[in-house]
Amino acid sequence: MAASRLYLDWNATAPLHPAARDAMLRALDLFGNPNSVHGEGRATRAAIEAARRQVAIIAGAEPSHVVFTSGATEAANMVLTPEFRMGRTPLAIGHLYVSAIEHPALREGGRFPKDRVSEIPVTFDGVVDLAALEALLAGHDKATGLPMVAIMLANNETGIIQPARAAADIVQAHGGIFVVDAVQAAGRVPVDINGIGADFLIVSSHKIGGPKGAGALVSRGEVLMPKPLIHGGGQEKGHRSGTENSLALIGFGAAAAAAVAEFETRNVAIGALRDRLESGMRLAAPDVIIHGAEQSRVPNTCFFTLPGLKAETGQIAFDLEGVALSAGSACSAGKLGESHVLVAMGRDPQLGALRISLGFATTDEEIDRAISVFAKIAGRRKPAGVAA
Amino acid sequence: MAASRLYLDWNATAPLHPAARDAMLRALDLFGNPNSVHGEGRATRAAIEAARRQVAIIAGAEPSHVVFTSGATEAANMVLTPEFRMGRTPLAIGHLYVSAIEHPALREGGRFPKDRVSEIPVTFDGVVDLAALEALLAGHDKATGLPMVAIMLANNETGIIQPARAAADIVQAHGGIFVVDAVQAAGRVPVDINGIGADFLIVSSHKIGGPKGAGALVSRGEVLMPKPLIHGGGQEKGHRSGTENSLALIGFGAAAAAAVAEFETRNVAIGALRDRLESGMRLAAPDVIIHGAEQSRVPNTCFFTLPGLKAETGQIAFDLEGVALSAGSACSAGKLGESHVLVAMGRDPQLGALRISLGFATTDEEIDRAISVFAKIAGRRKPAGVAA
Repeated sequence: MAASRLYLDWNATAPLHPAARDAMLRALDLFGNPNSVHGEGRATRAAIEAARRQVAIIAGAEPSHVVFTSGATEAANMVLTPEFRMGRTPLAIGHLYVSAIEHPALREGGRFPKDRVSEIPVTFDGVVDLAALEALLAGHDKATGLPMVAIMLANNETGIIQPARAAADIVQAHGGIFVVDAVQAAGRVPVDINGIGADFLIVSSHKIGGPKGAGALVSRGEVLMPKPLIHGGGQEKGHRSGTENSLALIGFGAAAAAAVAEFETRNVAIGALRDRLESGMRLAAPDVIIHGAEQSRVPNTCFFTLPGLKAETGQIAFDLEGVALSAGSACSAGKLGESHVLVAMGRDPQLGALRISLGFATTDEEIDRAISVFAKIAGRRKPAGVAA
Repeated sequence: MAASRLYLDWNATAPLHPAARDAMLRALDLFGNPNSVHGEGRATRAAIEAARRQVAIIAGAEPSHVVFTSGATEAANMVLTPEFRMGRTPLAIGHLYVSAIEHPALREGGRFPKDRVSEIPVTFDGVVDLAALEALLAGHDKATGLPMVAIMLANNETGIIQPARAAADIVQAHGGIFVVDAVQAAGRVPVDINGIGADFLIVSSHKIGGPKGAGALVSRGEVLMPKPLIHGGGQEKGHRSGTENSLALIGFGAAAAAAVAEFETRNVAIGALRDRLESGMRLAAPDVIIHGAEQSRVPNTCFFTLPGLKAETGQIAFDLEGVALSAGSACSAGKLGESHVLVAMGRDPQLGALRISLGFATTDEEIDRAISVFAKIAGRRKPAGVAA
């Protein structure tokens, strides 16, 4: 194993951003229950509301339209439900249309029965097929309720940016509800709920340098809201019960504020590092396939296939060299298998692909080392056709 | 306002226990996604599994029977559902019977439709009425599915310990599923899922000195389990998806371990302080009513009425004197109102009651000060009959 570790799996999770770390250290003793009316409670409440304003900015939303959750998965399960309310009036959602490259948190369909969930295909280029979406919505039976469409803004494996704005127009034309998973996009590309035309955005703390255990469902307004997933004490205006995770929310807010403040510099630098990495990879192994390289991608992600190297083997080889990267999504609880994203893109699932993802702390030296380790592993592959 | 604050609202939430604080500080940079297979991921995974073993002990359970959640409210919503599985076979729960003094997280009934939830009354003494439970279960229509019964081990407002073991016998005789909310009992009285005869226990981190944002649903076995509330990446063996809140879980584990290690000394000391507090209160205001004083209570809780002092007024008066206490549960998102617990006990809801709750850091000097502030506030009440 190498002397020091090199972490290149930022799409799985990010180290705490220094601003989040500092904010959490300062808040460790801010322990009051934010729902208590005494001084201790009010102090925690004020800190949570400050965090809400910080998170709102990263989504281009009103603070009052941010409902904090325990993470993006909970937010997805909250919003993907056939039972909505328009004010106090129940509103039925008849069917969920979810893209084939969504994260499992959305692909599982939340609270929709399986027979009321359909997949929107993606093209060979890894982009949601808008003609297919149009056709699906044209065939939607409004008698069952409104259609709901869920599309991610940036794919977690390929980094490919999805045509959310164009999808919004289609969804709106069909009177549907549009949910956008902005987990991998937030902080990496501009995210604005109104600009996108989304009814709901999902964001996560630990992908942007905040702690795990926090996320948000951001809405365009306050009238159209899903039936709560978690009932009880009535916190978050009744939308999400349970004592707020104040420490994590404070870290989430600080990370969001940092992502906004550093947006330009951070992404320009990361994009340059990623491009240099990919140039170095191509030089070291001209047969490397970089998925989505011809598409518009978030600046930090490189999803590649080295012919003859299985994803599982490759991941372990990099890990033994001290480099943390991923075979697709980390979220399937350690399962290693085919990439559902590559399958959805019509690629050979046997290809196997690895994901390198950079972050705000990635350095020039780290990229040099990544290229060198990549070259070493690429070089010791068996010749094509002999690969086990 | 007094020079320093005096926090006596430990049932609402506890400050971080030093052991939890230290464990979290050490873990701040343990950032890997616990579902990643690389070294960073495995390190976080190991820490979470250590926390699981620590939390298991506080519930007398197997570590493999602990499902981590974002808190007790989520755990309650997870387990209170008509849809269960016995292995891979669906199992229907027909009706939920929930005691009238449960926390709103359970009283709301989780995923049961309102018409499939019934209340179990409590006696004038604040104890769940077992004869009424027996009668309710005798009238249960098994054609709709099994009965489920939810009772707390210790009430959050009065501190009164509930007859969970006796209730378990009744529930078992009727073939039902028994859920015990041990949130306010854990660390204060011995909690053992098998000894109690519960099928499920609910515990919370922030009531025992861990951080907010963590809790657990503890089960007696692994075969009988509720349909997941949160779907997605398949974490927690598929029972609860979403990247684990590693930092909070590590703090939760450390707080649980401390609660086990310090159990005897902590509770003997706290019980003595509470008893001295109540003696001092009775001396200062002989007309004070201490609810449940004649019952078996957790050692840290004192729920009282000062005739002529409204709960809201009293809480503000104590807060202005630097003392944080509560008018019943903090969990109704800042709402001040009647205590549903007193109402369930058949008391006059106009009484108004205040809750003082102690914790591991409460000192002799703090109790002296609490008695002195209590005497001051009691002394300036208007004479009975003249009270506004």
